[in-house]
Amino acid sequence: MRLITRWQNSAGERVRIALRLKKIECEYVPVGTLAPGEYRRLNPQGLLPALDIGGRIVAQSSAILEYLEETFPVPALLPADPVTRAEARAFAAHITSEMHAITVRRVRRYLGTDLGVDEDHVDRWVSHWLTEGFRALEIALANRATDWPFCFGEAPGWADLHLIPQIENGRRLGVDLMPFPRLLGVEERCNALEAFILSRPAAQPDYPGERLP
Amino acid sequence: MRLITRWQNSAGERVRIALRLKKIECEYVPVGTLAPGEYRRLNPQGLLPALDIGGRIVAQSSAILEYLEETFPVPALLPADPVTRAEARAFAAHITSEMHAITVRRVRRYLGTDLGVDEDHVDRWVSHWLTEGFRALEIALANRATDWPFCFGEAPGWADLHLIPQIENGRRLGVDLMPFPRLLGVEERCNALEAFILSRPAAQPDYPGERLP
Repeated sequence: MRLITRWQNSAGERVRIALRLKKIECEYVPVGTLAPGEYRRLNPQGLLPALDIGGRIVAQSSAILEYLEETFPVPALLPADPVTRAEARAFAAHITSEMHAITVRRVRRYLGTDLGVDEDHVDRWVSHWLTEGFRALEIALANRATDWPFCFGEAPGWADLHLIPQIENGRRLGVDLMPFPRLLGVEERCNALEAFILSRPAAQPDYPGERLP
Repeated sequence: MRLITRWQNSAGERVRIALRLKKIECEYVPVGTLAPGEYRRLNPQGLLPALDIGGRIVAQSSAILEYLEETFPVPALLPADPVTRAEARAFAAHITSEMHAITVRRVRRYLGTDLGVDEDHVDRWVSHWLTEGFRALEIALANRATDWPFCFGEAPGWADLHLIPQIENGRRLGVDLMPFPRLLGVEERCNALEAFILSRPAAQPDYPGERLP
């Protein structure tokens, strides 16, 4: 298996964390190392990441993660209880659809370049959707039946691997995270773990700066 | 079980179709019939739909659909082959994240009201993301190993129940669908089926116009 991604690609970071939590061997392929036009031919959606499974290409991190969970079930990233599983998936889907999808770089760029929205208003756009999103996620954690150390369990899983890259993005984009202590608590616990540390943008082989850790 | 939704809610339409394809009994609760503030208390994300499972609330249509697929496995909405399952999920996630999430009403309203983007440019925004999205979906169908009558199989399933509400939305919002004959072919076959016909906005009990069919 090959994961085609890029160091900054935060949907790819979700998959990198999952691969490490499950200890799955998978080649990391920076999209920049492919021939021009090759990626668009492999994945007509054109977005990152994609998983190459013996020549068959799966796009969309949520589809890749479900594939990994079904094919390499141990350790499970989803909780065992059916409704708690659904809560973890809803938490993750809130991040992918309501926060990440509408604030990613290509969307911000389209706002600025094609709609002529000025930089201040683009920042306001990002801050609005991310703050609204984090607020809902914080409440979701407050409402849990059990005050687990990770989002939906004693070990990190599905919701956590979506949350951490989104928190990093929020911080980088200037969102005030102080009102979300539960989210920051989960982040602190995740950031002590190798699967998360090694999946960070700055730890990837194609990171252009000084590589960490 | 209760599905809290609204006639126009196209993420709710996905769930309505799934419930009918699986013949699951589920009460339809129009959100307008709840007491003021009640829905936000039940679902802090505040978005529709939500599934009420004996008092536990699951948000996000993708989480609801995975719950239904796990709990009521027959008939399966996902293909049996692991990679084809992933392809069907990626097709659906492309719709939810890259098309629906960034063109829904609250996003269009925020563009107009809070960012001061004029109506023509909001239309351009919608048309851009939906046309890009449909183009990727059309190629995904063209690239299938088998030319199935539905997106990923001989029977309608996961990808189809995401596609049909999105095609309706695209048409309503003025997107030219003629360049996407494979998508329109799937739509025609789905629209002959009761599960799709009875799940349409105009067939819901809270539809304000003359109810169809």
